[in-house]
Amino acid sequence: MGKVPRILSWRNMLVLSLAVNVSLVLRILKGSDGGNSSYVSIWPVVSTSLDRTVYDNKWPVVSTTASGSSSLSSASCIYNETQEDDDRIINLKLGDPMVYERYWQQMGHMTTMVIPGWQSLSYFSDNNNELCWFLEPELAKEIVRVHKVVGNAVTQDRYIVVGTGSTQLYQAALYALSPHDDSGPINVVSASPYYCSYPLITDCLKSGLYRWGGDAKGYKEEGPYIELVTSPNNPDGFLRESVVNRSEGILIHDLAYYWPQYTPITSIADHDVMLFTASKSTGHAGMRIGWALVKDKETARKMTEYIELNTIGVSKVSQLRVAKVLKAVSDSCSNETFKSFFEHSYDAMSERWKLLKQASKTSKGFTLPVFDSQRCSFFGKVFEPQPAFAWLKCEEGIVDCEKFLREEKNILTKSGKYFGDDLSYVRLSMLDRDSTFNILLHRISSSFNSSTL
Amino acid sequence: MGKVPRILSWRNMLVLSLAVNVSLVLRILKGSDGGNSSYVSIWPVVSTSLDRTVYDNKWPVVSTTASGSSSLSSASCIYNETQEDDDRIINLKLGDPMVYERYWQQMGHMTTMVIPGWQSLSYFSDNNNELCWFLEPELAKEIVRVHKVVGNAVTQDRYIVVGTGSTQLYQAALYALSPHDDSGPINVVSASPYYCSYPLITDCLKSGLYRWGGDAKGYKEEGPYIELVTSPNNPDGFLRESVVNRSEGILIHDLAYYWPQYTPITSIADHDVMLFTASKSTGHAGMRIGWALVKDKETARKMTEYIELNTIGVSKVSQLRVAKVLKAVSDSCSNETFKSFFEHSYDAMSERWKLLKQASKTSKGFTLPVFDSQRCSFFGKVFEPQPAFAWLKCEEGIVDCEKFLREEKNILTKSGKYFGDDLSYVRLSMLDRDSTFNILLHRISSSFNSSTL
Repeated sequence: MGKVPRILSWRNMLVLSLAVNVSLVLRILKGSDGGNSSYVSIWPVVSTSLDRTVYDNKWPVVSTTASGSSSLSSASCIYNETQEDDDRIINLKLGDPMVYERYWQQMGHMTTMVIPGWQSLSYFSDNNNELCWFLEPELAKEIVRVHKVVGNAVTQDRYIVVGTGSTQLYQAALYALSPHDDSGPINVVSASPYYCSYPLITDCLKSGLYRWGGDAKGYKEEGPYIELVTSPNNPDGFLRESVVNRSEGILIHDLAYYWPQYTPITSIADHDVMLFTASKSTGHAGMRIGWALVKDKETARKMTEYIELNTIGVSKVSQLRVAKVLKAVSDSCSNETFKSFFEHSYDAMSERWKLLKQASKTSKGFTLPVFDSQRCSFFGKVFEPQPAFAWLKCEEGIVDCEKFLREEKNILTKSGKYFGDDLSYVRLSMLDRDSTFNILLHRISSSFNSSTL
Repeated sequence: MGKVPRILSWRNMLVLSLAVNVSLVLRILKGSDGGNSSYVSIWPVVSTSLDRTVYDNKWPVVSTTASGSSSLSSASCIYNETQEDDDRIINLKLGDPMVYERYWQQMGHMTTMVIPGWQSLSYFSDNNNELCWFLEPELAKEIVRVHKVVGNAVTQDRYIVVGTGSTQLYQAALYALSPHDDSGPINVVSASPYYCSYPLITDCLKSGLYRWGGDAKGYKEEGPYIELVTSPNNPDGFLRESVVNRSEGILIHDLAYYWPQYTPITSIADHDVMLFTASKSTGHAGMRIGWALVKDKETARKMTEYIELNTIGVSKVSQLRVAKVLKAVSDSCSNETFKSFFEHSYDAMSERWKLLKQASKTSKGFTLPVFDSQRCSFFGKVFEPQPAFAWLKCEEGIVDCEKFLREEKNILTKSGKYFGDDLSYVRLSMLDRDSTFNILLHRISSSFNSSTL
């Protein structure tokens, strides 16, 4: 005990020294960024020079040098005279959420994690959680909090199951909700255009428990079935409800995009099985963390069982990281000195959709979905959906839109055929970095003459 | 450019300041630990007080206060007079690798990771890797290096596929190696006693691609089949080769335990598909990272495809963490001033097996497998296997060993029946913390009289 005062004094010195570190880091970054840019990277490691070169171009751009604001500028339609590299292929097939990078760079110091080598050795995260023993309690707490802050889903009396992304949770839900007797595989349906991976994931192992049953709109078979309701929908961004509506239907709600940067929050979602993911809510796709809010205990138990069998739990360090990120998101919503995560993200998506719609009007070569405005309970204002993907339809006689964009514009997209729709549609990501989005804008603003494709 | 010298000078100050932090942390810890204990936790956050209370007991113990050595003491059979709590249930069902915690606490500063909030947002890890795009290049590098250092597996001309633990890779291998035509499910077999999860994982989705075919020793069916060769074997620790040996056999080698702390490294493994995991090599089970070394490109491609469908890749932060840990392991093997990771772990396992064998002789209530000694190319010495699990057989008329240990000894184990063997066997983990292992030793050293079970 005699050592305690001495230890405390060393600890005090450590706190002081750490404070010096932080101020030095900030000093270095201020020095390197100069005084005019609002783009302050707290961590200088990642080079953004490759991206920045393409900001200098001669078509409408999302400005990255807005002054006096931490968000993308609202006065961003700037033209200048530098050319882009037309040969560079841009890949917008997957919804890689790089649009969020800038925000997290700005907030870097708030969500930085330090993980000692001996932490998280065990398989177990929570011995007190009889059901989902691999769920980190801190993540569970922050999941509940962020849903309360946003008001997008009921968490009271719900079981939380964590997964390696919501993709794993989708499979866990199929495993949990399918009959395990000898009645044969249950049909899994979703209204077209449906998320292109659903048929592939459902049928990849030729499971005897479930099978892909196709478009829910034409579904006529008798007996139990599972319907996937993706709302807002991937690929087209519309809010959805179930379409089959028969008593033997079991519903899985994929709410990956039910966040206010993408769509007005019109009600507190309250369904039996609701899936969410860090990839699309905060942009942390590389963490592979999703969560399910589940009403029925036995369903949650069986989902947990699947994840046990499939991967013996979920990365603890990813869970802790996402917990920290969600905490920062919730905290930002009660901070009045700078824009919240959702305000920042809403502005970014709003800006992009405005520019894309403008390009559509100019070019006339393609059209976009037409959305109704709705009141968002989170923002307290009325706006149109501004989805993570653009569900783009080629016009002017272009039959195969994916082929046209790939061959004529060097833009990789996902063809409508994978979503249960026709070749004139493509899905393209609206979530890539500004630089890529600017190239997209430029290329699709120009001529669409190619009636041979 | 004019700013560079100023930035560098701030950076230099930051480096100095960080150095002060490290020395302060070390100073604080030295102060709080006193000078006599060799147990130096670099990070003071985790309390080990709960564990330490049980070190004071009155049966042979693994000492945790050895002086002058960073490893477990070799002079560790100390008796003293304090009682343990006989009512505490100890769970040795799963091989939770907590035995490694002490080593990583000691090495904490070497493997600590700092992850800024904006890092690893993307799904993609390596755009240059046409095959496994979600594999972190740093992890790939350290996997190759550690296998070279240990000499336990060929890496040259092999494709590396990373998975969410080797459990996911096992399923990826089944997906890749099963025929996808209409020939029906291929049989998957393994010689009993086999890893208890294999039948469950294989059959959980009633796949039309593969099905559990049972004990490889009695397998007589014609046609293609997949044989799992777990070597050293889980549960019994013996080195194994395939047993069916027919031309149409496809082999998957699960080499999770082929590391020198568990078994002599007798040759450089050189098989078509070899599975490894961080859980059992370095003890980082909570990271959920495994890797496969795959000879055939198409097999590796299909394994990657499965992981894409199943979880859209693998946690990047877990991969980076494991890369750092593997680097520390390899580095420790060329450091002559302190014990390497494998020396430390070998000593810990050796000590435990010595005490367990001693308890078996004293009690006569149970027996253990009898292993041959072999020369280990890594350590350059001859020794017996000292597996991660004890495959314990109850004697003295105890029919149901799992029930006996649970009801009479408050020890939870996994019954032999789950491994394709009989009820007189159980598998129990040798990898728990010292405190738990000491309780195990105490309880199984005492009377085994219970002929009714």
